[in-house]
Amino acid sequence: MMRVPVLEIFGPTFQGEGAVIGQKTMFVRTAGCDYSCSWCDSAFTWDGSQKDRIRMMTGEEILAELDGLAPNNYSHVTISGGNPALLKNMSGFVELAKERNIQMAVETQGTVFQEWMKDIDDVTISPKPPSSGMVTDYGKLEKVMAGLDAGGACYNFKVVVFDEQDFEYAAHIHQKYPDVAFYLQVGNPFLGDNVADHTNKLLERYNNLVDMTMKDQRMNDARVLPQLHTLLWSNKQGV
Amino acid sequence: MMRVPVLEIFGPTFQGEGAVIGQKTMFVRTAGCDYSCSWCDSAFTWDGSQKDRIRMMTGEEILAELDGLAPNNYSHVTISGGNPALLKNMSGFVELAKERNIQMAVETQGTVFQEWMKDIDDVTISPKPPSSGMVTDYGKLEKVMAGLDAGGACYNFKVVVFDEQDFEYAAHIHQKYPDVAFYLQVGNPFLGDNVADHTNKLLERYNNLVDMTMKDQRMNDARVLPQLHTLLWSNKQGV
Repeated sequence: MMRVPVLEIFGPTFQGEGAVIGQKTMFVRTAGCDYSCSWCDSAFTWDGSQKDRIRMMTGEEILAELDGLAPNNYSHVTISGGNPALLKNMSGFVELAKERNIQMAVETQGTVFQEWMKDIDDVTISPKPPSSGMVTDYGKLEKVMAGLDAGGACYNFKVVVFDEQDFEYAAHIHQKYPDVAFYLQVGNPFLGDNVADHTNKLLERYNNLVDMTMKDQRMNDARVLPQLHTLLWSNKQGV
Repeated sequence: MMRVPVLEIFGPTFQGEGAVIGQKTMFVRTAGCDYSCSWCDSAFTWDGSQKDRIRMMTGEEILAELDGLAPNNYSHVTISGGNPALLKNMSGFVELAKERNIQMAVETQGTVFQEWMKDIDDVTISPKPPSSGMVTDYGKLEKVMAGLDAGGACYNFKVVVFDEQDFEYAAHIHQKYPDVAFYLQVGNPFLGDNVADHTNKLLERYNNLVDMTMKDQRMNDARVLPQLHTLLWSNKQGV
């Protein structure tokens, strides 16, 4: 049986960020990541703090849980992590969901390609900027892109920006691959529970990122977005 | 000479709503509308309050003004109103912009079709719900859709929702035309300058609209969005 490590299944909720921002969706969050970004907002997927919650699930089991949570009340699923692209066995769920005509999105940093990613309607590749502490392996990134291109898949880049160095990294990625739809996302450095005045702090940072984007000719065809779920619900998990 | 009545040209800024939310863009706002929505956030385009600011401009003049405002600093233009679809002569600007490979978006309520709309990359049709005081003429709407379909144009629906009756209207539109990409947008009833606590008031309304969308099976493939520019800048004109 093809099983994958699942940390959370929740919804219906909406996608708060990126290319399909606003979309009504269910979330399947897998455990495990090949990165350990300094500011990861889902560090519980890889830092061991919630390892007792991980369940090894088949595609059938995932689909049954989605159906139980939202009977007839979803037609879109977002696969997130962690890095779901580590999981070859995710093909089990993807095939079942595709048979049901469920639309799917996935987010990954672009380090590993899996064949099932060709069946995903919207693939977001989110290479990590310097503030994350990670270093981009462009060879791996281009292998992922080549795999998606070969399958005629629809993908986009999303780069999270915390500071000017991150913004330069984003401009580098966008200029290197100018034909890929490009999204800038404002970083959220205010993690944890009960962040005071979180919405206004994030909107101030978003305003700054908008300003930088408007002034920079390299970003003429970029899109710049906040995380809507964080504006509404701060850092609450499972929504 | 083909001239159109222009009320505002501004940018670079970003598109705060709808299908191309977040996009860096310039705005060309035309004067005149065949509707008079009760809650229109650009009533100055049709209520006469800013009629002395209206300029009759050629496509060349509009392009020159955009270039002056943002030399080499834009590649996307949003044509808004009022209802720009009233203006046959907008073809002059659209042809020039297309020659320059400028991406374009337009927003209209879907009452009138013009041939130049086939050359627009993203057409947003925004039929108005009951709270607007307007009544949808489905015959006119379908003529607009037929014109766009014949040209192979990319279009979407966006319905602004203020209350439950509007939500039912939105569901009706979405069910009637299920193959058209569908966006719900939270209404902004707090018009005018210096609205106290505007961002939080809008986010509360957005949260309610998200809740309604999540509970309703008719909205399984809808996207639900706020107006980002209003969250950042309240009702300020020209940004």
